[in-house]
Amino acid sequence: MANINENHLNLKGTYLFVRIAEKVKDYQKAHPDADIIRLGIGDVTLPLAPVIVDAMTKAVQEMGKAETFRGYGPEQGYDFLRQAIVDGDYKPLGINIAMDEVFISDGAKSDVANIQELFSEDNVIAITDPVYPVYLDSNVMGGRTGESVDGIFPKVVYLPTSAENNFSPEFPSERVDIVYLCSPNNPTGTVLSRARLAEWIKWCKDNDAVLMFDSAYEAFISTEDTVHSIYEIEGAREVAIEFRSFSKTAGFTGTRCAYAVIPKEVTAKTKSGERHPLNPMWNRRQATKFNGVPYIVQRGAEAVYTKEGREQTRANIAYYKENARIIKEGLEALGLTVYGGVDAPYIWVKAPNNMNSWDFFDILLEQAQIVSTPGSGFGPHGEGYLRMTSFGTRENTIRAVERIKNIKF
Amino acid sequence: MANINENHLNLKGTYLFVRIAEKVKDYQKAHPDADIIRLGIGDVTLPLAPVIVDAMTKAVQEMGKAETFRGYGPEQGYDFLRQAIVDGDYKPLGINIAMDEVFISDGAKSDVANIQELFSEDNVIAITDPVYPVYLDSNVMGGRTGESVDGIFPKVVYLPTSAENNFSPEFPSERVDIVYLCSPNNPTGTVLSRARLAEWIKWCKDNDAVLMFDSAYEAFISTEDTVHSIYEIEGAREVAIEFRSFSKTAGFTGTRCAYAVIPKEVTAKTKSGERHPLNPMWNRRQATKFNGVPYIVQRGAEAVYTKEGREQTRANIAYYKENARIIKEGLEALGLTVYGGVDAPYIWVKAPNNMNSWDFFDILLEQAQIVSTPGSGFGPHGEGYLRMTSFGTRENTIRAVERIKNIKF
Repeated sequence: MANINENHLNLKGTYLFVRIAEKVKDYQKAHPDADIIRLGIGDVTLPLAPVIVDAMTKAVQEMGKAETFRGYGPEQGYDFLRQAIVDGDYKPLGINIAMDEVFISDGAKSDVANIQELFSEDNVIAITDPVYPVYLDSNVMGGRTGESVDGIFPKVVYLPTSAENNFSPEFPSERVDIVYLCSPNNPTGTVLSRARLAEWIKWCKDNDAVLMFDSAYEAFISTEDTVHSIYEIEGAREVAIEFRSFSKTAGFTGTRCAYAVIPKEVTAKTKSGERHPLNPMWNRRQATKFNGVPYIVQRGAEAVYTKEGREQTRANIAYYKENARIIKEGLEALGLTVYGGVDAPYIWVKAPNNMNSWDFFDILLEQAQIVSTPGSGFGPHGEGYLRMTSFGTRENTIRAVERIKNIKF
Repeated sequence: MANINENHLNLKGTYLFVRIAEKVKDYQKAHPDADIIRLGIGDVTLPLAPVIVDAMTKAVQEMGKAETFRGYGPEQGYDFLRQAIVDGDYKPLGINIAMDEVFISDGAKSDVANIQELFSEDNVIAITDPVYPVYLDSNVMGGRTGESVDGIFPKVVYLPTSAENNFSPEFPSERVDIVYLCSPNNPTGTVLSRARLAEWIKWCKDNDAVLMFDSAYEAFISTEDTVHSIYEIEGAREVAIEFRSFSKTAGFTGTRCAYAVIPKEVTAKTKSGERHPLNPMWNRRQATKFNGVPYIVQRGAEAVYTKEGREQTRANIAYYKENARIIKEGLEALGLTVYGGVDAPYIWVKAPNNMNSWDFFDILLEQAQIVSTPGSGFGPHGEGYLRMTSFGTRENTIRAVERIKNIKF
């Protein structure tokens, strides 16, 4: 008699985006002519850069000729891309990462969801609140959370992150084995300071915890002295795994390529206290449960590191960052309190008059035909906020701000 | 203190292919001019069909224009591909599969490795011996096997598969919850008969077991009345999950696209006896731990189902099948006993004179400069066999057979 993994029953429904979709659908039905502007989902809209299109076109042609055809590639990614990452993302920061510490994958979502498989079920995880839901949901499936009560999982340590603590969570006061941090942050759009990240690395070392550092939005950093890689922090190689993605850096949300860095020094223990490095464990996990990223896509990602690739993808990032500035400054001019939007594509808007997230969402939809994401959907401490994204077109971004000006709060 | 998932320590090393690679390397070092023919690894060599190259080239161009750019796609795959699969692979067989029962993925390897996550740790799995190692290794990681003793995992039910039982394993005599079957088979190249598969479906129903049916090599079937999909068998929709791939069908080993079919009737139980359908569980699993296959690749896979796509990919399959025939008949003419190679790209060669797999491997390497795969690497009952593949070029395939003719066994 086959039995299911009952941990899956502890997953909460995907209510957030379903509820948003339903509300938008209802509104559209009632207002068939409404010109809705979508600033809810964090998906890019600009096309792939020409240099990436050229590289992938060439790779497709190679696949069509016997002399240049490629079958199975290395599960860990082709050396040409691993080397380009080492040289392009780490060497300029003065960081030594070996090629075999870089694992190419089909997405940072896959990586941050799969990494927990390396750990036993009794590890205690800490996540910020609000948070990107995949860290939590993958651990629900992995049996580390228990059953939720009123939306809160008893075995999870939540680290409240809000304006009260300047979006820099306190250290856990209880035992924690694995910490997930995302900077620049989704959903708040804020960054953790270099000094604070150094304290986190120290905390992880002192507590023998592993830090899962998600820097999928690294390309949006422009503030000086902001950390681009966790390995800029001394000691990070001993405790931190870094997740990066081409999704937002180069518009690969529908093209799928990312990477995880697992330095050889990062270890975890057996119950009897024996230390095991996580790098070979992940290598074996990927070689068994994954078969690599398409050759064509890896050639596209490689092109991001060429001179033209850098210029073209930076131009796209600059476009989105200008959108973020327009939203941020536009809303601030209206007297709204706004966070993020400087080193990230997300703007975290405090609802006026102590309104809750959904009420604020409804007002934006009904009075300005703008779709946003209620902050409460990312966790209890997201209540009272909305997430807006800078991934729309310039025109829609400007129109959205103009419309919000006319709302009577 | 972060603890590792100690199940990973039960994994056996990847000794097989490492050992093969080492032996080949040593041989090459000693014989620098040796003209080695590789018929070991199951990787295709023919380039992608022109219609696929065209479709992907077009898709790459679409990604480079704002009007046609695609960001995040559905985690389950685009409707255009799911529908093409339903219409192309199932309707012609008279099988009704709904579009939302088809899940597009980056590989059958990923799917067969990940599917066990839906089940609790105490499920008993049955695998054939010899077997494709991923079924076993993914369950080792999932904690369902125990620690191996002399290469045998105590909690796993092994189903010996050899010439003695005509490569059609007996039913397990002990409790089994999940059965993995692969037909056409890797590594033996044999197929299970329609009658026997019907008995397996009945057995699974009687024993409330789930059948994982891997038909990655389906495109190689040419023998009449051989089952192309498990859903040709009555009742299969209640107990069977089918895994298919574009890897061997269309040369996608380096392009990465596959799919799993999970009919809505397939269920497993909670400990308290409540039945849960696996389809929504897999849907949630994929939506959480995966983010879909590249749009470009899905357009390539869609092209396989066009008239030209059918013709061009069938021509490639015919090429490999002719290679298989050349190997099979060539070796038979030498008096060797050979299995498979008719409905599959694999030829399963019995070592002469009761030689073991590695001795036979060494003779082929040293006397004919041919790389094969020792059958013992796929499980104890593979001992005394070698696997050869038909994925080489025609020229090399013919030369390989000629060389074997000159070996003195």
